[in-house]
Amino acid sequence: MPSPLRIGIAGLGTVGAAVMRLLDRQAEALQSRAGRQITIAGVSASQKGKDRGISLAHFPWFDDCVALARSPNIDLFVELVGGADGVALAAAEAALGAGKSLVTANKALLAKHGMRLAALAEEKGIALAFEASVAGGIPVVKTLREGLAGNFIERVYGILNGTCNYILTRMEAEGLSFAQCVKEAQRLGYAEADPSFDVGGSDTAHKLAILTSLAFGTVIDTKAISIEGIQSITPADLEAASELGFRIKLLGVAERTPLGIEQRVHPTMVAKSTAIAQVDGVTNAVTIDADAVHELTLVGPGAGGEATASAIVADVADIARGVRSAPFGRPVTSLVPVTPAPMQLHEGGYYIRLSVYDQPGAAAAIATRMAEKGISLESIVQRRSPRAKATPGEAVPVVLITHATHEKAVRQALEAAIADGFLAESPQVIRIERE
Amino acid sequence: MPSPLRIGIAGLGTVGAAVMRLLDRQAEALQSRAGRQITIAGVSASQKGKDRGISLAHFPWFDDCVALARSPNIDLFVELVGGADGVALAAAEAALGAGKSLVTANKALLAKHGMRLAALAEEKGIALAFEASVAGGIPVVKTLREGLAGNFIERVYGILNGTCNYILTRMEAEGLSFAQCVKEAQRLGYAEADPSFDVGGSDTAHKLAILTSLAFGTVIDTKAISIEGIQSITPADLEAASELGFRIKLLGVAERTPLGIEQRVHPTMVAKSTAIAQVDGVTNAVTIDADAVHELTLVGPGAGGEATASAIVADVADIARGVRSAPFGRPVTSLVPVTPAPMQLHEGGYYIRLSVYDQPGAAAAIATRMAEKGISLESIVQRRSPRAKATPGEAVPVVLITHATHEKAVRQALEAAIADGFLAESPQVIRIERE
Repeated sequence: MPSPLRIGIAGLGTVGAAVMRLLDRQAEALQSRAGRQITIAGVSASQKGKDRGISLAHFPWFDDCVALARSPNIDLFVELVGGADGVALAAAEAALGAGKSLVTANKALLAKHGMRLAALAEEKGIALAFEASVAGGIPVVKTLREGLAGNFIERVYGILNGTCNYILTRMEAEGLSFAQCVKEAQRLGYAEADPSFDVGGSDTAHKLAILTSLAFGTVIDTKAISIEGIQSITPADLEAASELGFRIKLLGVAERTPLGIEQRVHPTMVAKSTAIAQVDGVTNAVTIDADAVHELTLVGPGAGGEATASAIVADVADIARGVRSAPFGRPVTSLVPVTPAPMQLHEGGYYIRLSVYDQPGAAAAIATRMAEKGISLESIVQRRSPRAKATPGEAVPVVLITHATHEKAVRQALEAAIADGFLAESPQVIRIERE
Repeated sequence: MPSPLRIGIAGLGTVGAAVMRLLDRQAEALQSRAGRQITIAGVSASQKGKDRGISLAHFPWFDDCVALARSPNIDLFVELVGGADGVALAAAEAALGAGKSLVTANKALLAKHGMRLAALAEEKGIALAFEASVAGGIPVVKTLREGLAGNFIERVYGILNGTCNYILTRMEAEGLSFAQCVKEAQRLGYAEADPSFDVGGSDTAHKLAILTSLAFGTVIDTKAISIEGIQSITPADLEAASELGFRIKLLGVAERTPLGIEQRVHPTMVAKSTAIAQVDGVTNAVTIDADAVHELTLVGPGAGGEATASAIVADVADIARGVRSAPFGRPVTSLVPVTPAPMQLHEGGYYIRLSVYDQPGAAAAIATRMAEKGISLESIVQRRSPRAKATPGEAVPVVLITHATHEKAVRQALEAAIADGFLAESPQVIRIERE
């Protein structure tokens, strides 16, 4: 039997501690699967004495995680420090530079430095694996990199941030405001004290950047991603969506179009009948459209210590078995730059919620502005709460659903409508994702 | 760059032809992913001249697929001949015996001879891969074998037969009979001229046998599988299920219980809110419950030439990259025999539809028979079509939903009720699968 695979783990928060527990719990099965023992040969974290519910007594301690990363006593370094730069980057580079395979859950690091780290791993003939960086326990990296190797991928999209999905689910189910649901999510540990990274879409964008590269064989290009968060979504939008047969989800979408690749993160209307619309709470889901397999959807836990650890341990087991594949499926040198499709030319249906002053000519003027830009409407619903009394001149909500049109046409039509002076508030615009 | 991987393909039906098309269409990407070219070095089928929409002119032809399997000009043999024995088995053994890796979509072959073939592959240090044998284009074999390597798996269950799911979906949506829907499925090419292998549950059982081994590290044991088909399901059952918040799906279920492993194929009541209940038509779905990942669901195409070819090409690409893992995740010698949990001791909720003579004391007698066996009822619905006129002494449908109880208790209570003489027909019993 080959010698044990000696791993070093840096970062012993919820995920790091769960990795240690899983490796212990599954030691026998992992040895049988990998054909060799997997041992923890070093650990590092910012605070040694913290209670993690596990004993560190049997594992060599490193105050400096970079020293652990390059220690001659380890073969593989598990980076769970976090952050796009700083110590995480230094440790990742030290490990790969010293010829040690790297397993990481750090999407920010990969989105920013993934290409360079992959090139280093390929040069050294070692592994760089990051299943845990996207959609937690869902094996979507493996599926794109290996399981769909025979496919030409057309679109990959999904719910990649459990915090946002939790908030939207609560808002829809209980009619609560965004702010109320953020507080609830914080109370339950689903959202950070500063939730802006999650709710603003940046976390989803990092994950999407990785999926795009795996799906299309392109160089990671985070600057090409159009990002909108869920802060502007109101209970009125969720209610109107539901009445029209939709649910609102924060999606990351990467799609081939005739103009290039669209990468976008935004609140999205999805038909209630789709698999992705059924996904509630902190659960994640990814759907892949591809030529041979047509449509594949994976649904599972997007976060949590044990689920993330499951993905990390699977990567470790692959490396222990001797699997060495290009980190992004194809050699970094063969990845091609993204030709970004401009969002102004995005084509699709739109949900538009307007607050229109209830006065003669208002509806006609808006309809005219739409028609001028060639936008054809699938439905117009003038909604007024049954409790509200109509007061002439008061603003009333009007919801439009368009047939497929261009982003630019929608934006220009709305600018013209605003200039006409009939709108009491900025329009709410939510893209509809086709099935 | 390493030398090309030379593959031989035997069986050029829908799937075989699709494999040839995919290998051609994706040649460049596959070479980039695998680090070597993949070439077709030989093909074999029963009829050479048949029009398959692809030209065979450039590929060496073998009348005898066993000769192709052992040809010195191939490194990997793709077996798409079909059948549990005969030529398929002879060719598989010839390939492995000659030190050539084997890729197959043949669940019947694997269910019967998988352990022996895997042992042969391990002995020779070559690959045996069979992603396409279960759930078509869904990468569930890879997910269980690699993606969840850090998990202790508790249950794996799913819709593994598209024909049955198509029939049940049509029956529910349109109120058609089983026989009518079988005819429709045959007309559309979703069912064979003799549909008994699909509708009787045997096809699902073969796939379940493979999943059980991968999930629990056990020796394949098809004799331990309890099998019931969907032939007895009526529109009345689907209607009653829907009213009670359920849908009926043919599931294959493998589950650890305190008594051993249950392996069962039967029509099942699943709550409408579950991911698996939403899966319609020929689509397949598999849900895996495991300790670390909690719950993971994969939904995708269970059959079709291109989807099946997608799985086969992924296996070929893995082997081209040099991946060699134990076919069933762990070495065959370390797989343990299944301790089968007897179905008589199965624990769960039950749907029971009775046809009861409408006479005094009938309902009380049935309720007494249930109570005698300690069965507690969640609901009792006496259903009568609004169109039907009540005639004293005529049979009326009564639907019972039980709380969790034992199979044996249900069977004994129903035997007693039959003996009481109040039932006009044999009771319909459908197990409820917990979430």
